[in-house]
Amino acid sequence: MLHAAARLFAQQGYSGTGMRQLAAEAGVSLSMINYYFGSKAAVLEQLVTGLHEVYFETIRSAFESADTIEEKIRAYVRAAVEVARTRPHELRCAFTELPDEVPEIAAQKIERLRELTVLWQTHILAHRPHLADLPVPVLGPAVGQMIASHFMVRPMLQKVLGDQLVFDDAFYARYAEQIADLLLYGLLGPRPSPPVVD
Amino acid sequence: MLHAAARLFAQQGYSGTGMRQLAAEAGVSLSMINYYFGSKAAVLEQLVTGLHEVYFETIRSAFESADTIEEKIRAYVRAAVEVARTRPHELRCAFTELPDEVPEIAAQKIERLRELTVLWQTHILAHRPHLADLPVPVLGPAVGQMIASHFMVRPMLQKVLGDQLVFDDAFYARYAEQIADLLLYGLLGPRPSPPVVD
Repeated sequence: MLHAAARLFAQQGYSGTGMRQLAAEAGVSLSMINYYFGSKAAVLEQLVTGLHEVYFETIRSAFESADTIEEKIRAYVRAAVEVARTRPHELRCAFTELPDEVPEIAAQKIERLRELTVLWQTHILAHRPHLADLPVPVLGPAVGQMIASHFMVRPMLQKVLGDQLVFDDAFYARYAEQIADLLLYGLLGPRPSPPVVD
Repeated sequence: MLHAAARLFAQQGYSGTGMRQLAAEAGVSLSMINYYFGSKAAVLEQLVTGLHEVYFETIRSAFESADTIEEKIRAYVRAAVEVARTRPHELRCAFTELPDEVPEIAAQKIERLRELTVLWQTHILAHRPHLADLPVPVLGPAVGQMIASHFMVRPMLQKVLGDQLVFDDAFYARYAEQIADLLLYGLLGPRPSPPVVD
């Protein structure tokens, strides 16, 4: 049911999807959805909560699994790419609802932004004093959306690149290292190691 | 009229907005909108076309205005931040409609992605051979969305940071340099100059 909802919200937007359509897509009755969820906003809330939990657990354990900033960032980007690959519809929903003011998920989004701020502050910025003037709550979302952006434009990419590019495991292993390189060393910095997978 | 449409689409989504509501918000009659635009998709198309034109002109002239990669990137980030500040509703529309399959704007999005690819290839990647294995059509959108992400989470940021942060000219001058620093030198790289504005 949540999977069907994620697909519909991703395709036609949250506000463009009706409860009746959700029920039809999930193959259940409208009264069953009403019984279990109560409202369309509650469906969106569960969806976004599920994705947030997985994503934050991913960041936290990636940051805690390594000692250096380099390894923390690489572990995080790799794990975030995996989350994005396995939950593309949920990611789209969370992405497109980000600027919206659906009141049922507003408090949750703010709470997650606070958590993200603490994670970045503790694991990355506390060790890089020269970055201290970057407002932390700005950096976390910027990096997250840099990683996510690929999954938003992927349908277009396929049309631009045709058969040049196959979005397989090897592509995503390379993609994660390249994004990590860019985050760690920038466009001008050194590229210390060759890509892990080629 | 386009301004009213941008505000409505940004607030409640493209598919959640009806033509009747567009007419009411813009203070014109439904038949007038139908006469000038023909359909809701045509309104979205004009909106997105307008933003795309400004944004691409911005990237192009920023990249052409400078000789070094450092100055090209700084000029681009500064100009993109200005576009985002002056057209927040249009930016939200383009952002949230990015993964959607509204057929009327699909061809345009693909064409713009092609242009973006050529601009990045010519001005940046051709001079940085070590970045050559990064698929160019992946880099352009990632950087664009990194800059845009701030404007998507800004309503939340205000709630998290309270009065600590004022989103004024000084903030955005600093924001542009910080994002440019991050893109040029990464999290580990040097920060060669102090922020321009403090």
